[in-house]
Amino acid sequence: MEYAVRGPIAIRAVELERELANGAQKPFPNVIKANIGDAHAMGQKRITFIRQLLECIANPSSMKIDKTLPSDVIEHANAFIGSCRGNSAGAYSRGTGVEVVRKHVSEYISRRDGGIPSNSEDICLSRGASESIRNVLKLFINRNNSIYRNKKKVGIMIPIPQYPLYSATIGEFGLGQVGYYLREVSNWSLDEAELERSFNGHRKEYDIRVLCIINPGNPTGQVLSRENIETIIKFAHKKKLFLMADEVYQDNVYAQGSEFHSFKKVLVEMGEPYSKLELASFHSVSKGYMGECGMRGGYVEFLNLDPEVYALFKEMISAELYSTVLGQAVIDAVVNPPKEGEPSYALWKKERDAVLASLKERATLVEKAFSSIDGISCNPVQGAMYAFPQITIPQKAVEIAQSRNQHPDFFYAMELLESTGICVVPGSGFGQRDGTYHFRTTILLKPELFKDMLARFTDFHAKFLAQYK
Amino acid sequence: MEYAVRGPIAIRAVELERELANGAQKPFPNVIKANIGDAHAMGQKRITFIRQLLECIANPSSMKIDKTLPSDVIEHANAFIGSCRGNSAGAYSRGTGVEVVRKHVSEYISRRDGGIPSNSEDICLSRGASESIRNVLKLFINRNNSIYRNKKKVGIMIPIPQYPLYSATIGEFGLGQVGYYLREVSNWSLDEAELERSFNGHRKEYDIRVLCIINPGNPTGQVLSRENIETIIKFAHKKKLFLMADEVYQDNVYAQGSEFHSFKKVLVEMGEPYSKLELASFHSVSKGYMGECGMRGGYVEFLNLDPEVYALFKEMISAELYSTVLGQAVIDAVVNPPKEGEPSYALWKKERDAVLASLKERATLVEKAFSSIDGISCNPVQGAMYAFPQITIPQKAVEIAQSRNQHPDFFYAMELLESTGICVVPGSGFGQRDGTYHFRTTILLKPELFKDMLARFTDFHAKFLAQYK
Repeated sequence: MEYAVRGPIAIRAVELERELANGAQKPFPNVIKANIGDAHAMGQKRITFIRQLLECIANPSSMKIDKTLPSDVIEHANAFIGSCRGNSAGAYSRGTGVEVVRKHVSEYISRRDGGIPSNSEDICLSRGASESIRNVLKLFINRNNSIYRNKKKVGIMIPIPQYPLYSATIGEFGLGQVGYYLREVSNWSLDEAELERSFNGHRKEYDIRVLCIINPGNPTGQVLSRENIETIIKFAHKKKLFLMADEVYQDNVYAQGSEFHSFKKVLVEMGEPYSKLELASFHSVSKGYMGECGMRGGYVEFLNLDPEVYALFKEMISAELYSTVLGQAVIDAVVNPPKEGEPSYALWKKERDAVLASLKERATLVEKAFSSIDGISCNPVQGAMYAFPQITIPQKAVEIAQSRNQHPDFFYAMELLESTGICVVPGSGFGQRDGTYHFRTTILLKPELFKDMLARFTDFHAKFLAQYK
Repeated sequence: MEYAVRGPIAIRAVELERELANGAQKPFPNVIKANIGDAHAMGQKRITFIRQLLECIANPSSMKIDKTLPSDVIEHANAFIGSCRGNSAGAYSRGTGVEVVRKHVSEYISRRDGGIPSNSEDICLSRGASESIRNVLKLFINRNNSIYRNKKKVGIMIPIPQYPLYSATIGEFGLGQVGYYLREVSNWSLDEAELERSFNGHRKEYDIRVLCIINPGNPTGQVLSRENIETIIKFAHKKKLFLMADEVYQDNVYAQGSEFHSFKKVLVEMGEPYSKLELASFHSVSKGYMGECGMRGGYVEFLNLDPEVYALFKEMISAELYSTVLGQAVIDAVVNPPKEGEPSYALWKKERDAVLASLKERATLVEKAFSSIDGISCNPVQGAMYAFPQITIPQKAVEIAQSRNQHPDFFYAMELLESTGICVVPGSGFGQRDGTYHFRTTILLKPELFKDMLARFTDFHAKFLAQYK
């Protein structure tokens, strides 16, 4: 299982930090971690409402003692605790999750999608979107699944570049990876011809059943237009594909004119036959404005799933290890935030808006900064938390990398780390068109640190080009 | 993947609860869940120290506001937060877990084992012991593991009866199950001759590499004597087995004369060659006096593990989904409780002692009560949270069960549930000697509820015997 985001470069970065702490001399004063979408690790402040709710659920006695807790926080907490077995976050929660949270998730989805109904019975809570994604993919493992019994491996269509959870899980489960390229020249959009090419190129080898989309994109930061989504839905219908919509960045949309459209909403509004497509949509508390990665909370909503398959899924997750109840409390806070007029509303809104405004600023800053460096081009960061700039790597450097059996952009990223302390993820970890090279950087650095990173980066890149030209 | 503890009877119990809530008429007023070791669900009170610590870590602002928080809680919380990335429980924690918790775990183990050293580098935190057990077993999957490359399946020795996590995981991973019977007549102890018989009976079929022990026992409630542990260690040495010691009930020892001996302590004190055996020992926050099942926290300590294998293990858990940080905070509270003289000590000790004393009372009560019923025999509950009584099932009932393709004790348990609302787990879910029948009940019911259960049970059992005699 390869996982570039936590691969050799990330490991080396931690070593370098330790070396620096032990007084080693390096050509840089500190390591700058732009490799992982871990907002709190990068100094993002906690949202008061979320943490107050957690406080109350973790230690209900605090509700009687702490007189500064707003009444709506206490109401939320009591509703949550009342839905836990034994009225305690210390009790196991059943496979699909705490009931009141499932209900709040469905209400959230319905609000988000302009009133399109959502049924709490179709929601399964989990310890993060990754877990749900893995469990849905598990349904397609032939050997365990009587429904898709077939001699060919089941093929899963995934974007290239993609978040490596997909490629790693597909490999681990013995499924078939069917990559379709995103169009870098039109800001990483999807192209029907490319979907067709990819499907046709693999249909002999695999029984292609699933189409995965990441929107907003990771590592690519694009936000799909409604038109683009309709094209994808039509394609999925034509090929009878199960749609997996990774929508964990649905709150992270920054660009003028960009808007998040859920696959569910578009598909339902398109009407039959498209509204009958099977869909799984994923969300998480790790991203958005809250960035609560360490809490482990996420969910999947199913639409039109075959009841027999859903029964199998629920059986599977019940046999699995239980979810963390406090992680589910964070989901609850995210999907059921304070409403206008409630005591917590003003502060919650202020904090949320501040995080999102700051991310928006940084999205523009990062794009502009990287675009201005010679030999680097960078698409706009319309959403999510990443830029995925393309870099020119001189032939001489490519050859050295190849002689070491390294991807050229891995070589580049490792040189960057050793020379400047900047940690990014090489594009090869996500996949890219042959002969192109990229890296992924988060937009989570604070402006001061980002300025510092940019100075180091510009200097390094010029030297790298000169050295290997 | 079969999991009796959460199987059809548990599912039916939930349905019955719902039917009752909707006003259905049943021959009982409520469902009594004696099927799962979920202390908080059964009304166990939270330990103030643990929940105050969680409060502080979840919402650090509360440390400034809540003046009733003891100073040692605040110190613990600050040490924990200081060890989190970005000083926030909202940041991802690395694969092996929050550093300060690993350190506290190793100190706890060393205290527990009378000063035998423990190295925090040998500790990996997880979302509960189950996760660690699964990950250690994963190391023995041939196809993923160059170290144990072998044409035969790797065989894993497990007790019968056993906690179904083992059989289910062995099945899922394509490993070989090698069951050894516990001796019911000598209170579920281990017998060298039986270990030999089991090993020899499977050595042709499997490459037997691992010996799993559950002590104190689940579902059997025995506590192994030091002598018995030494016998097992000698056997493991003779057969070159990797020892997996499931010691999650190490705090749950009740019987006069019984004492918990960790495998690590015994093995180290036996000296070479035994002290060089490879060992993995597991612990959890779900059991003990805290019973914090919903929090998801556990750990594994390795001893003498091959460094290459350990590197592989750490790589594997790093590629996995991250642990919950708040779950790790609960581990921290459990392994680093207040010390004598600290402000929280008196209350913590009082609460802990009360839970353990109450469990001890109930252990005796449950054993005596079931022993007194005609046609039921029950070993002493020396430790853990369960009794595993043997029941007589009349031949006529056995035949009816078999005609329905059910285990006789499954038939019995389902009849019990439908007639009385009592939910227990049939012995066949854990394994047992052919022709014997059992059920597992927890000792977690409050005395009032237990008295009620016992009255219903006695009445049902007499009727059952009469009906099928």
